[in-house]
Amino acid sequence: MKWTNSLIPTVKEDPTEAESISHKLMIRSGLVRKLSAGTYCYLPLGQRILNKVINIIREEMDRAGALEVLLPALHPPELWEQTGRLKDFGDIIFKIKDRTGKLNLLGPTHEEIITWLVSNEVNSYRQLPINLYQIQTKFRDEIRPRFGVIRSKEFIMMDSYSFEKDEAGLDASYKKMYDAYCRIFDRCGLPYKIIEADTGLMGGKGSHEFTCPSPAGEDLFVSCSDCNYSANPIFAPVRTSDDGRKTTDVPAPTGVELKPIKEILTPGKSTIDSLVEFLSSKPHKMIKTMLCKTPDGPVAVLIRGDHELNLNKLSKLLASPASVELADEATIEKVTGGAVGFSGPVGLKDVRIIADYSVQNMANAITGANKKDTHLLNVNINRDFQVSQFADVRVITEKDPCPTCNKLSLKIHQGIEMGHIFKLGTKYSTALNAYFLDEKGIRIPIIMGCYGIGVNRILAATIENSFDQNGIIWTKELTPYPVLIISVNQSDEQIQKASENIYDELKKHSIEALWDNRDASAGIKFKDADLIGIPLIVTVGRELKNNKVDIKFRATGKRESVALDQAVDFIIKNIAQPPPKAGAGQA
Amino acid sequence: MKWTNSLIPTVKEDPTEAESISHKLMIRSGLVRKLSAGTYCYLPLGQRILNKVINIIREEMDRAGALEVLLPALHPPELWEQTGRLKDFGDIIFKIKDRTGKLNLLGPTHEEIITWLVSNEVNSYRQLPINLYQIQTKFRDEIRPRFGVIRSKEFIMMDSYSFEKDEAGLDASYKKMYDAYCRIFDRCGLPYKIIEADTGLMGGKGSHEFTCPSPAGEDLFVSCSDCNYSANPIFAPVRTSDDGRKTTDVPAPTGVELKPIKEILTPGKSTIDSLVEFLSSKPHKMIKTMLCKTPDGPVAVLIRGDHELNLNKLSKLLASPASVELADEATIEKVTGGAVGFSGPVGLKDVRIIADYSVQNMANAITGANKKDTHLLNVNINRDFQVSQFADVRVITEKDPCPTCNKLSLKIHQGIEMGHIFKLGTKYSTALNAYFLDEKGIRIPIIMGCYGIGVNRILAATIENSFDQNGIIWTKELTPYPVLIISVNQSDEQIQKASENIYDELKKHSIEALWDNRDASAGIKFKDADLIGIPLIVTVGRELKNNKVDIKFRATGKRESVALDQAVDFIIKNIAQPPPKAGAGQA
Repeated sequence: MKWTNSLIPTVKEDPTEAESISHKLMIRSGLVRKLSAGTYCYLPLGQRILNKVINIIREEMDRAGALEVLLPALHPPELWEQTGRLKDFGDIIFKIKDRTGKLNLLGPTHEEIITWLVSNEVNSYRQLPINLYQIQTKFRDEIRPRFGVIRSKEFIMMDSYSFEKDEAGLDASYKKMYDAYCRIFDRCGLPYKIIEADTGLMGGKGSHEFTCPSPAGEDLFVSCSDCNYSANPIFAPVRTSDDGRKTTDVPAPTGVELKPIKEILTPGKSTIDSLVEFLSSKPHKMIKTMLCKTPDGPVAVLIRGDHELNLNKLSKLLASPASVELADEATIEKVTGGAVGFSGPVGLKDVRIIADYSVQNMANAITGANKKDTHLLNVNINRDFQVSQFADVRVITEKDPCPTCNKLSLKIHQGIEMGHIFKLGTKYSTALNAYFLDEKGIRIPIIMGCYGIGVNRILAATIENSFDQNGIIWTKELTPYPVLIISVNQSDEQIQKASENIYDELKKHSIEALWDNRDASAGIKFKDADLIGIPLIVTVGRELKNNKVDIKFRATGKRESVALDQAVDFIIKNIAQPPPKAGAGQA
Repeated sequence: MKWTNSLIPTVKEDPTEAESISHKLMIRSGLVRKLSAGTYCYLPLGQRILNKVINIIREEMDRAGALEVLLPALHPPELWEQTGRLKDFGDIIFKIKDRTGKLNLLGPTHEEIITWLVSNEVNSYRQLPINLYQIQTKFRDEIRPRFGVIRSKEFIMMDSYSFEKDEAGLDASYKKMYDAYCRIFDRCGLPYKIIEADTGLMGGKGSHEFTCPSPAGEDLFVSCSDCNYSANPIFAPVRTSDDGRKTTDVPAPTGVELKPIKEILTPGKSTIDSLVEFLSSKPHKMIKTMLCKTPDGPVAVLIRGDHELNLNKLSKLLASPASVELADEATIEKVTGGAVGFSGPVGLKDVRIIADYSVQNMANAITGANKKDTHLLNVNINRDFQVSQFADVRVITEKDPCPTCNKLSLKIHQGIEMGHIFKLGTKYSTALNAYFLDEKGIRIPIIMGCYGIGVNRILAATIENSFDQNGIIWTKELTPYPVLIISVNQSDEQIQKASENIYDELKKHSIEALWDNRDASAGIKFKDADLIGIPLIVTVGRELKNNKVDIKFRATGKRESVALDQAVDFIIKNIAQPPPKAGAGQA
């Protein structure tokens, strides 16, 4: 491809709107352009990379025995009502009324549709197992689209769904997908962590995320440097000690004198931080009282001042997925009789109190007084209030021991979630009537798994992990072109001719180079070369008079002066291009 | 692929909902399933064919120098307001309010978005010409989705857009796309007609449709068997004779006596057919008076009783694209003072009268009397009413001479529109501010063309043109698998082994066969083989004892008995599979 025949609008300055490295570099190197908040246009260079990622995914999914299908993006809401997820997903689903007034949804994921399809077409154990995948555009009305293509309203997902006779089959399919995902991310050249994850709105019994560590990631994961444990923090249990209760980093008080309770004025000190400063105290000496709304009425949850409430664990404890949330101001005032920011457990009536295990051993704690601008000192469990239940309802911290090996080696990282696999079980098949007859003629719900990869994110994650101050450094598998030829002076006929010769010779070897044949300065060309990040850069310039070209490796900056008549061989050897493979649609 | 590992749910009976051959066969052979009116799921066999079509399109577009991009499906309405098409498209566009109440459109086509993109990135003649294409899902809220995937609400389109410095550039790009489209449809093995077409809502100056003749087609085209002229009937001009006026198949009256006008009662005879019967007359002796709404007020259009009004020609005549329509009942009654179905030109006031050329030579015509249940006999132009303008405002008929060669050899056919190419000119670039600086530094609007192929329709059109009473007959390029192996008795170990050997050997030659390894009767397998239409069917059965297999050519029914050890060579020779090509994303 000659540069002048393509559209590669590089940009010198960092765009002000871009929040992350990958977002900046994708715009600067002319891969994408923003149309509106959360929607992006892929320009020719970006689209080539997208196609390469799609080809890798397709090859690996086919190799794993999955079958490609294509499902509509427009969904009838009835199927989503049957699984209850129309309500669970809420505003994240785009809703459209068509010309007749009928409601349509824009699919944010496809469990409902694929299960409906399979329920109609599969009815015998002979047709199982089966794994169906698609590479298709999803739509989500994100509250806050950000980081360019990392969180957008419209994105390409590879989603697949496995259908099994039994749990052993699900385990086998799950392992196949787990392995295929490893191959996909390995081939893309991406670092990634496989972390234990929560099933969330998907339901089901087991889940792993494939997450690429990156400061631009919105997803947190906790991992142990000793035993290699990795998990989503909202999923990671705070470790159980031998006595069956949870440990904490603060030792239990023994022989502590319980002091008399005392009310103090704390005007305007409604946050832990402001209170710590005002009282010259420490967060771990305080109890936060969080009012939550549940289907069974409000619940007060007690969390130590230095911890975070884990709504996910609380929901599971109350067996109410997705319907537990923090109470609004009106509810707080009604339940506590006091002001927001000054809630406490003492004197609370008609409300169940749940406390995190870490609160169990606290003595003489500081709490709100359920009265504006007032706190209580020396509050003690049992003496001053009763707890209905102690439980693990907080987010794990780096101070907690590893849930697996018990060592104090946890770290919390940011990452980009690139893939997610779930053991769904029968949630969808029972809701949507996807049953099969087994060998004995007994009607059994099909057991499902589901698996997804965010295709666009792979581009961003690769860049987040492969760049320097000058631009992107593409991996060999994802680079839009394997080699870039720069003719430093396009008006020099000899340079022009030598460049064209290399370009044409490479084409004969089925290698499509990008040839920067612009009528521009060498400086601009070198800068753009580093910016767009093609791994091998061949410069045809001054050294041509000695029958040589300069070849630079973008990743290392290493240069070699290569004889003109050996340049093509050198390039072929060094791009180590995998042999062309047939597209999925070809026999 | 082993049949038992895939999902190929063939169906014995014709589905009642299916209206066309292709719709029936796509469901029966397990290519697609309907999710809701106008949306379809592609099953594994269907998806393989879709991928093959996409690969062909991508190869030919790349070969023609077009650059692949990907644009969002969610569109901001502002760009559509700037071109005026938000109103022009009306209810065909799906509209969504997002969670903030902001309106989004689901793109039915992408002229606005691509022009906006190019307006931001291209500003110099050095960056032109350029041709950008995408293969992407479009959404249209069709009033009446039908014929399966032929007219659906959600479909894959390859749409491309060329940007040029001048008209000569546009002509060259247009020719390139014209040729690429021919190659694409040729490779798919489809018969097609290239017809002169109207630019409709696209605007612009020239257009061709690539239409596959088929009774399932909703598009009409007129073609001449003498000179090969083809056109969309709404576009085809009624031929101009040498004197500059239009000819008609009814000779001009000469020496006809103009009889006195006479009012007659015609109770309930408000249609041409009922009036013809009532008066024992002929349609060509009547004048239909059609009231139309235009931006400049109502217009009465006179058309001979055996002709059809061509609103498209009328719009062009009045230079009011898309805003000319038939008047409603209230308008008719107000303008004519009479009842609907009884309009006529005599006595009409304050309304412009336009008459088709064919009306010019009529004498003693029958018209409505602008009075309920009443007509006039012996109406004559000039004597009884005045015409403001004579023009070509009717639809061409098979009785008209060919606009090109003047022979009476026109036929009107039905067809499936598979591709459409347009010379847009500067409609979008001026509306969306896409200008460039030419060699002299003068700011000029970019000249555009746009080009589209309905990807899903290619499957349907192929089937409409290639089937017999037993099922589909796939072309070599589109067949989901090049060869089908049938083992007639899966429990016979020798048959099973011989089949597997052929299957494995073909795989070594990069040929993926479909192997019907089901535990089903030979009869079912033969029937399904004919139904799904793979061109080469290898049967491993009775003849195995003589070391032979039976190879059948699906298209001709021709069979050959081939020695087992020569079967693979025979298959390779006969599938004439093109060598595997690299996907577009590969170097």
